[in-house]
Amino acid sequence: MPTHNSSMNPSQVNFNSPRKFGTTLKSKCKETFFPDDPFRQFKNEKPLGKAKKTLQYFVPIFEWLPQYNLKMFRFDLLAGITITTLAIPQGISYAKLAEIPPIIGLYSSFVPALVYAILGSSKHVAVGTVAACSLLIADTIGSKVSSKDDPTLYLHLVFTAAFITGVFQAALGFLRLGILVDFLSHSTITGFMGGTAIIICLQQLKGLLGVSHFTTKTDVVSVLHAVFKNRNEWKWETAVVGMAFLVFLLFTRYLSQRKPKLFWVSAMAPMVVVVLGCLLAYFTRDRKYSIQTVGNLHKGLNPISIKYLNFDAEYLPSTLKAGIITGVIALAEGIAIGRSFAIMNNEQVDGNKEMVAFGFMNIVGSCFSCYLTTGPFSKTAVNYNSGCKTAASNLVMAIGMMLTLLFLAPLFSYTPLVALSAIIMSAMLGLIKYEEAYHLFKVDKFDFCICLAAFFGVAFISMDMGLMISVGLALLRALLYVARPAACKLGKLPDSTLYRDTEQYAEASGPPGILAIQLGSPIYYANGNYIRERILRWIRNDEGNGKAVKHVLLDLTGVTSIDTTGIETLAEVLRMLEVKHIKMKIVNPRLEVLEKMMKSKFVDKIGKESIFLCMEDAVEASYDFSVTTEKQGFEEQRSGVA
Amino acid sequence: MPTHNSSMNPSQVNFNSPRKFGTTLKSKCKETFFPDDPFRQFKNEKPLGKAKKTLQYFVPIFEWLPQYNLKMFRFDLLAGITITTLAIPQGISYAKLAEIPPIIGLYSSFVPALVYAILGSSKHVAVGTVAACSLLIADTIGSKVSSKDDPTLYLHLVFTAAFITGVFQAALGFLRLGILVDFLSHSTITGFMGGTAIIICLQQLKGLLGVSHFTTKTDVVSVLHAVFKNRNEWKWETAVVGMAFLVFLLFTRYLSQRKPKLFWVSAMAPMVVVVLGCLLAYFTRDRKYSIQTVGNLHKGLNPISIKYLNFDAEYLPSTLKAGIITGVIALAEGIAIGRSFAIMNNEQVDGNKEMVAFGFMNIVGSCFSCYLTTGPFSKTAVNYNSGCKTAASNLVMAIGMMLTLLFLAPLFSYTPLVALSAIIMSAMLGLIKYEEAYHLFKVDKFDFCICLAAFFGVAFISMDMGLMISVGLALLRALLYVARPAACKLGKLPDSTLYRDTEQYAEASGPPGILAIQLGSPIYYANGNYIRERILRWIRNDEGNGKAVKHVLLDLTGVTSIDTTGIETLAEVLRMLEVKHIKMKIVNPRLEVLEKMMKSKFVDKIGKESIFLCMEDAVEASYDFSVTTEKQGFEEQRSGVA
Repeated sequence: MPTHNSSMNPSQVNFNSPRKFGTTLKSKCKETFFPDDPFRQFKNEKPLGKAKKTLQYFVPIFEWLPQYNLKMFRFDLLAGITITTLAIPQGISYAKLAEIPPIIGLYSSFVPALVYAILGSSKHVAVGTVAACSLLIADTIGSKVSSKDDPTLYLHLVFTAAFITGVFQAALGFLRLGILVDFLSHSTITGFMGGTAIIICLQQLKGLLGVSHFTTKTDVVSVLHAVFKNRNEWKWETAVVGMAFLVFLLFTRYLSQRKPKLFWVSAMAPMVVVVLGCLLAYFTRDRKYSIQTVGNLHKGLNPISIKYLNFDAEYLPSTLKAGIITGVIALAEGIAIGRSFAIMNNEQVDGNKEMVAFGFMNIVGSCFSCYLTTGPFSKTAVNYNSGCKTAASNLVMAIGMMLTLLFLAPLFSYTPLVALSAIIMSAMLGLIKYEEAYHLFKVDKFDFCICLAAFFGVAFISMDMGLMISVGLALLRALLYVARPAACKLGKLPDSTLYRDTEQYAEASGPPGILAIQLGSPIYYANGNYIRERILRWIRNDEGNGKAVKHVLLDLTGVTSIDTTGIETLAEVLRMLEVKHIKMKIVNPRLEVLEKMMKSKFVDKIGKESIFLCMEDAVEASYDFSVTTEKQGFEEQRSGVA
Repeated sequence: MPTHNSSMNPSQVNFNSPRKFGTTLKSKCKETFFPDDPFRQFKNEKPLGKAKKTLQYFVPIFEWLPQYNLKMFRFDLLAGITITTLAIPQGISYAKLAEIPPIIGLYSSFVPALVYAILGSSKHVAVGTVAACSLLIADTIGSKVSSKDDPTLYLHLVFTAAFITGVFQAALGFLRLGILVDFLSHSTITGFMGGTAIIICLQQLKGLLGVSHFTTKTDVVSVLHAVFKNRNEWKWETAVVGMAFLVFLLFTRYLSQRKPKLFWVSAMAPMVVVVLGCLLAYFTRDRKYSIQTVGNLHKGLNPISIKYLNFDAEYLPSTLKAGIITGVIALAEGIAIGRSFAIMNNEQVDGNKEMVAFGFMNIVGSCFSCYLTTGPFSKTAVNYNSGCKTAASNLVMAIGMMLTLLFLAPLFSYTPLVALSAIIMSAMLGLIKYEEAYHLFKVDKFDFCICLAAFFGVAFISMDMGLMISVGLALLRALLYVARPAACKLGKLPDSTLYRDTEQYAEASGPPGILAIQLGSPIYYANGNYIRERILRWIRNDEGNGKAVKHVLLDLTGVTSIDTTGIETLAEVLRMLEVKHIKMKIVNPRLEVLEKMMKSKFVDKIGKESIFLCMEDAVEASYDFSVTTEKQGFEEQRSGVA
């Protein structure tokens, strides 16, 4: 084994002239916007091949359709039928949540699913509407235009919001800004989903208890207040039916969770509830205590709605807000879910490409009377478990929805509201993940706080505020990471050339007269002052303990980047140490850091002879200048320990 | 020299049980809020000594006064007189800039200077008003209440803003939130000051050309438009006098810059201009083209203004905005300047203590008819060059101002506006630092952009927008640092045990079958996806080049922290590599990272035997499992190279 010996064959720091600006800019842009290197596959292709690959890249259906066969279709057909049976009750339920006509929910599983089947790159995502975004749309647009007083205008604004969402999502994808979605942390989403589930469940008390006067606010306090204020409207018949449905749905879910092969039981259950509910409503339609039903579902495909898009300046702030916030949440849900199923199969999902697909899905959808759609978790999981092989299962669902719209829609007019409430509640209860929150609590308290902030913010203030507070906290943490980077004092491990954190390895001890410090994370304006203070504090501490410090060795292995303020900080430290007659040495500066040090003449100030490739060399060099006896004493002490 | 040999005496990763939550929380809070360890000096004191030290800590005058002697006083007296002669013209000028009566400018160098002398911890800071903040106050409050239409209300709001600034600054100091000021980067301040200097200079064209109709906007376009629209009001007499003054002032500054011993020439010059201007105005007072003067300066000390503080809900948003923005800028200027002079003398300034001092200075000031004060650069530099020894020079200035207010104030009524304009312009021209901007351009293009954004934002949009855009860009950069941490592929340097970046050291090459990767910066939610993609890309690249990858070694030396998403990312990578039959190994996890890995059971998943203390050990261990011949081939190849 070759060993490193500085005196025999000194390894030098590479002081080549800095790379050109163009080179670094190109490499940075690539890392920022194309970390997954999507154009790799085009490199060694001829022009025609390139054109073909480009088409396949942007329109994935051309990639999988040529290889499609009957065996795959059998799987996709089954999966498609399963998700269609789920899409009908979910579509109607979530449309009620968004306070738009229930038929829109059915429309929204037809056109967007077609678009996604052509453009989507994930095999498992099943397109549909989602509860959280539906409520958020109702909340945001409802604060400007009441869905009761002016339902037409309200509906048009919902279409407009979907259009804006689509443009926003597609733009993010084209601009390769998938990075934005990365800033919605897992903790935020866990808390947000939990909080949303709580308020949606509470809202369903309206349907479950048959209350007709209700609040438009979404927070827990207002909703509970509205429920109990209208005690006199509670109908026990509705409540009993609703509880029965709910218990049935929860039981089927429990069954599927215990025996994954029975996944279709829970997938079919909502449809069963709807059918049972319809029958019940139909036979009790002439009674005194008739059950409230959805009502009014016409036959026919999606009418064109492009002419209804409303960009009036008065409503634009609301639609923009609704469009962008729901757009981000929908992307986070859709992409995260596509990705997690792809990982199970060891495949990759290109987040930016998915954004473009979701974007076009919503743009086209909003022109055909659809509101916001994405890849909801429940539907996608059912799709995956049903064994779908390609995006063709979405195609099957689209055809299923088309047939439903053409022939069966009026049958669903009898769907009782209480059945929808039960379906929504059972779906929502699955989104409250206490184990997840407990895991966060155990591993990382700050992540737990971020999660709690989203949960309580959504539950007690409002959905958008809760989300923003939580994202703000997460960003604050990211900034704290960079403002207060962990630095540590290094000591030499016995019988090795390794220098490690003295706090982590108690047996590591610093050579006398030398203070070895490892800095982590980029050094720049937000942490320059801190790093200076921290270094000075270590020197004071050592001096306070009676140890004279003659050399400060800064290990920059963990410093990946530096800005002008960071270099000034190092220069200041150098100046302050010079006054104290302490020598400063730099160990292992990374490429970018060394380049900036050279450009800013810091290398000339400190001298090339003070920059070393490894800690051992720097320590050796320190002793060459120090009194020799000191080193001997240390070596003897070391061998004594060994 | 002891060498590290893994087979003889293996150094082990320290798998001690994680530290308690309380311990880590305490240490984090200390690093975040008390990085300079201010209570170190109290540790080994008796109760009485502690009380004394505490008093000295919070009221620094008790620290330096007991050691004060006549020799120090002689220096402070000289410095105090010098800054008094600067304070009078500056006070009047900047009060005009803030559109308040000029006497307020004189008041503002009296009471705050007294307070700072007692509470301030910097020896060099000289208290006074600043141009940028004065203009910003006029801009913000003037947009709500016109200083012309209702000067009394306007003045009261200015006092209120100063009060809010004081409370805000003191609160930041008490809460140890000095960290906030760290987020105003040097690049932002350079650009902001430059932009402010430009618009203030242009505004002075009003006084210099004697224009009486003018705009209240501050951006370049509006100001130039106002100047040229009112061409008919230009007075050549005023312009000639103004230019003469300006040339004189710039010449004295040039002289002082060339010969630092003549610093007093440029310090006295503004006073000379004022006196000359007064004489000129006095003797031409009966002419037709009389020169516009300040007018109306009464004898007498600061009247009490606490009863005028106006917290009316109608004006509160404006005063809050003005108070907080100017508070941050004033702090950044005052603290940065105190710090940079302290560094020259190898002393320390406690930023949080300074904030408290500035805060009280403004609170007390606002109750005694003063507006916003801080430690302006020009005055502080003069104070330092005059040889001040303690904060007593501020005391001398306060006494000088008191005498001026009591006896000399009416004499300054004749100060011509054109003289003030010349003084402001000459001061502002010194704040445009092109060399600084050029340095930023050379060293770091992104810093240069941040600087330009502040400069053009201030010059062409508005002062607060310019500041916010620039701070936003700087934050974006900080977030990009954490979202896209630099990672690199490591190779072994010939004839050593060192593994270094293959891009930086061309001679470093990876052992066959092994992909060694060094990650930098914390791994967490914002960069988890990126890191996963990056690792997979390296594997694909190696495989694309015909090199089979059998082991992936992740060097976590530079990873100072990790959150739950980060650990999930590592677990995902582990899972994906397992599918590809690639082994993953972790090298040198830091204390906090290892703790989280243990808490989240990641260590159990990967196995303790896959976590190594150094790269060499991990490579060795990889070969123990690999085919032996491969390694031999590599070793032979290596020795061939050497």
